[in-house]
Amino acid sequence: MRIGVLGTGMVGRTIASKLAELGHEVRMGSRAAGTEAAVDWVADAGPNASEGSFGDAAGFGELLFNCTAGGASLEALAIAGEANLHGKVLVDVANPLDFSGGMPPTLSICNDDSLGERIQVAFPEALVVKALNTINCAVMVDPERVPGEHVVFVCGENAAAKERVTGLLGEFGWPGERIVDLGGIAAARGTEMYLPLWLALYGKLGTGDFNVTIARSG
Amino acid sequence: MRIGVLGTGMVGRTIASKLAELGHEVRMGSRAAGTEAAVDWVADAGPNASEGSFGDAAGFGELLFNCTAGGASLEALAIAGEANLHGKVLVDVANPLDFSGGMPPTLSICNDDSLGERIQVAFPEALVVKALNTINCAVMVDPERVPGEHVVFVCGENAAAKERVTGLLGEFGWPGERIVDLGGIAAARGTEMYLPLWLALYGKLGTGDFNVTIARSG
Repeated sequence: MRIGVLGTGMVGRTIASKLAELGHEVRMGSRAAGTEAAVDWVADAGPNASEGSFGDAAGFGELLFNCTAGGASLEALAIAGEANLHGKVLVDVANPLDFSGGMPPTLSICNDDSLGERIQVAFPEALVVKALNTINCAVMVDPERVPGEHVVFVCGENAAAKERVTGLLGEFGWPGERIVDLGGIAAARGTEMYLPLWLALYGKLGTGDFNVTIARSG
Repeated sequence: MRIGVLGTGMVGRTIASKLAELGHEVRMGSRAAGTEAAVDWVADAGPNASEGSFGDAAGFGELLFNCTAGGASLEALAIAGEANLHGKVLVDVANPLDFSGGMPPTLSICNDDSLGERIQVAFPEALVVKALNTINCAVMVDPERVPGEHVVFVCGENAAAKERVTGLLGEFGWPGERIVDLGGIAAARGTEMYLPLWLALYGKLGTGDFNVTIARSG
């Protein structure tokens, strides 16, 4: 599949590399074509990899990943161009972390709204699926780094879009029973607001190689 | 031990009943002595149980549980009387849920602050330990309702206070290795902001008999 990955940070590079390794054609997008991070990534990632502007990557992909910094995602997607998102599955991996007040970061959107919802409202013709944002990027694409029946959450308004994302997560190594569909895109409030607990656990454990398992009766 | 439990809702009654069953002397506090919920609870809970005003319960207890509704906790503690909190461990179980906008609730405090922190700031001589607020009350006092190595989080500024709470959690049935100390009281932001995810999981699973396990490498 042709996939556009917006964002050249560690999350974007990790996801894009995994997708290219799996045989997908991947175009990484950044504010302008030819950024050092993107060009380096293309050199590393092999023949399935290309790079360009946000619009280039979004136009190229049949399915898109938003891996931009959460505080910049709405602007990045606007630059990518609404027409390039139209009818496409847009996997929103970003968290709206705000580091302007120092550490720990706060969320620039939360409580009665979420980044996932804002993106869906701003781009109503995109099929937004919030996923993977509760997990360190190394674990996102290699769940076996962490033992146990830990889970990845997905939510979004479109069932077929969530099915496609579930398929891709399966390619990443996530068994179907560990992909937890939380319902509509408003559930992104839950997965984004989990970030402060994730950060506290990261501080406690000293590693990002962890995740949550849901223990339940019955 | 003499324990005061502030709040006559389901969380307060469940915790107070468990404490009385364990042999502690428990006084439940509400806005005024003699509320129906408190009087009924005393009749059920046996000879270790008594009830009174917030001040009665807080004065009685060597250790206190805040089980009032999160949006009313600061006022309830003020009514209980700062002098009655002085030097005492105050286990804050409340979540600042705001139902004024309908379902799902939002948080009346979050992101750059938390109820746990607000209570510690308002009552600097109390030894606030945030705990148990990520778990359904039936599971709080009977962790074996849910199988697996699921965890309870504690945080607070005073190590000795957290030790005492850890001891009480052990009496509730929580093994030490499943009591996760997240550090200072600011980590209450993490455990309180987890609530929207808890609510989404509750909606998905159709039961409160669940909890999270931390899966980690190494």
